[in-house]
Amino acid sequence: MKPPTRPEFDLIARIRQRASHGRGDVVLGIGDDAAVLAVPAGRQLVVAMDTLNAGVHFPGDTAPGDIGWKSLAVNLSDLAAMGAEPAWCTLSLSLPSADPAWVDAFLEGFLDLARLHDVALVGGDTTRGPLSVCVAAHGWVEPGTALRRDGARPGDLVWVTGTLGDAAGALAQWRDGGGVDARLRARLDRPVPRIAVGRALPPVASACIDVSDGLLADLGHVCAASGVGAEILLDALPCPEVLRECFDAAARRRLQATGGDDYELCFTTRGTLRDAVAAIAADTGVDIACIGRIVAGREVEAFDAEGRPWRPDRPGHEHFTTQE
Amino acid sequence: MKPPTRPEFDLIARIRQRASHGRGDVVLGIGDDAAVLAVPAGRQLVVAMDTLNAGVHFPGDTAPGDIGWKSLAVNLSDLAAMGAEPAWCTLSLSLPSADPAWVDAFLEGFLDLARLHDVALVGGDTTRGPLSVCVAAHGWVEPGTALRRDGARPGDLVWVTGTLGDAAGALAQWRDGGGVDARLRARLDRPVPRIAVGRALPPVASACIDVSDGLLADLGHVCAASGVGAEILLDALPCPEVLRECFDAAARRRLQATGGDDYELCFTTRGTLRDAVAAIAADTGVDIACIGRIVAGREVEAFDAEGRPWRPDRPGHEHFTTQE
Repeated sequence: MKPPTRPEFDLIARIRQRASHGRGDVVLGIGDDAAVLAVPAGRQLVVAMDTLNAGVHFPGDTAPGDIGWKSLAVNLSDLAAMGAEPAWCTLSLSLPSADPAWVDAFLEGFLDLARLHDVALVGGDTTRGPLSVCVAAHGWVEPGTALRRDGARPGDLVWVTGTLGDAAGALAQWRDGGGVDARLRARLDRPVPRIAVGRALPPVASACIDVSDGLLADLGHVCAASGVGAEILLDALPCPEVLRECFDAAARRRLQATGGDDYELCFTTRGTLRDAVAAIAADTGVDIACIGRIVAGREVEAFDAEGRPWRPDRPGHEHFTTQE
Repeated sequence: MKPPTRPEFDLIARIRQRASHGRGDVVLGIGDDAAVLAVPAGRQLVVAMDTLNAGVHFPGDTAPGDIGWKSLAVNLSDLAAMGAEPAWCTLSLSLPSADPAWVDAFLEGFLDLARLHDVALVGGDTTRGPLSVCVAAHGWVEPGTALRRDGARPGDLVWVTGTLGDAAGALAQWRDGGGVDARLRARLDRPVPRIAVGRALPPVASACIDVSDGLLADLGHVCAASGVGAEILLDALPCPEVLRECFDAAARRRLQATGGDDYELCFTTRGTLRDAVAAIAADTGVDIACIGRIVAGREVEAFDAEGRPWRPDRPGHEHFTTQE
């Protein structure tokens, strides 16, 4: 009898065919029980793994190509936050039915981003189930140079790349049921992992995290791990023009301080390293703003231009739906 | 303000606390944006990734501890099928609600198996969504020794570890709605990855796969990758006593030839290596049966004791529910 043909195997063959790459360090890619990979001598392996679930991490009307892009982007963003160079990824795709056209569109977005960073898709599986995408991303750092959350010290400066609040702005508009600004929606659906900045940060940064849960929440993780507090100047948070067009000042403030899904890097440096950060911004073409400083204590406090403390009405970003 | 407290972070703290391990090669484990790991010099990294979805890969009445065990076991089985030594894993857990008692029970099964093989849980995430468990398992091999699917040659012998049909027998009983034999159910819920046999196989085996989709289906993958065919003797398939007690001969034959989820290893060797395989069986305490041979051609054919060809009425194992 011929080897059986099942939809799962058809999809894997489809993925395998499209996932070509030119990496010589992939000893064995898609098509066996596991991938075999050659980590360069003298490097430490860095592994991130994140899942996106339909109706939780993206609205149901998200295009499959955008889901593909984002599922890899959130993982590459984690590698960026470690200062790692990305190399390989695996993909576990749960689908309600074996839909080749959907998979093709998904892969287009996924592989577009993979190619941008020379990341090879080397394995994983396809299963039946509610739409869910789990990705593991692999990369490496020079030994001892991984950017951690626990290195911030009082007196350090706090920095953030790009702009904040865009993705949360898109979600807010989406929830309101009106139109969603295309520029905001693009930031929600196709976040750009800050790989180049992350790769440049190890000699400079004392701690780093990517902004997935909201600035105050994620900076809170850095402070908790480092045993410090932080003071943030709300007016220093980098705001895209489109956010000014679409939201009033109070809404903007909330979106920027607590909105997640921007996948910018938030990092700290010693106070003497302003010029070094400016050089990284110039080299990478990514804006980097100083938004506050690390202090003794345990709290993350935000202040307005008049020095008045500000608290959000909700603690953190809740992705797509609200957390129970 | 204090760093926000969200159920997701509580669960991660819970997992982190319980996932202690003694591995010195984990540079940075749970609690940062990614894990940092030290692959030993001169080894190639092996990465497997598989997802289990509720209602697809396990019946809804499966105990959380069994789901935990199985989600790691199917991935360690993939490493075994590559001849790899397991080292680390990451876990992405999607849960309908943040249920600490469920997570504790799940972790008990997951970590019981992890400890058996000195595997450290080093990262991942917890998200809201339909119950789904994605695991990536990492290990290593000596360069060039990974067991692949494409090395079988005509004249090779075909071997299988342990017994076949047990897990499929449990599923058949479960579907019938009667009682499920506890011995069969244990094989379905707590498969034992054949790590020790897998580690011993690289000098001996020409190809290897684990039996997750059913013997004929999985051997079909080996044959397709190797460009060969195979002849299997149905009466040589190792049958547990409990299967004889619970099923007639025709049902047993079907369960053994096409039933999946046993996670035994099916491998091929040159015909001269019978003694070497016997030595591995003796060293590991795992029965290994010779069940057929590799032939020229492209087909996997099964024969009964009278030499009559046999075909199943269904091509392969369908896990829990039937494939559309």
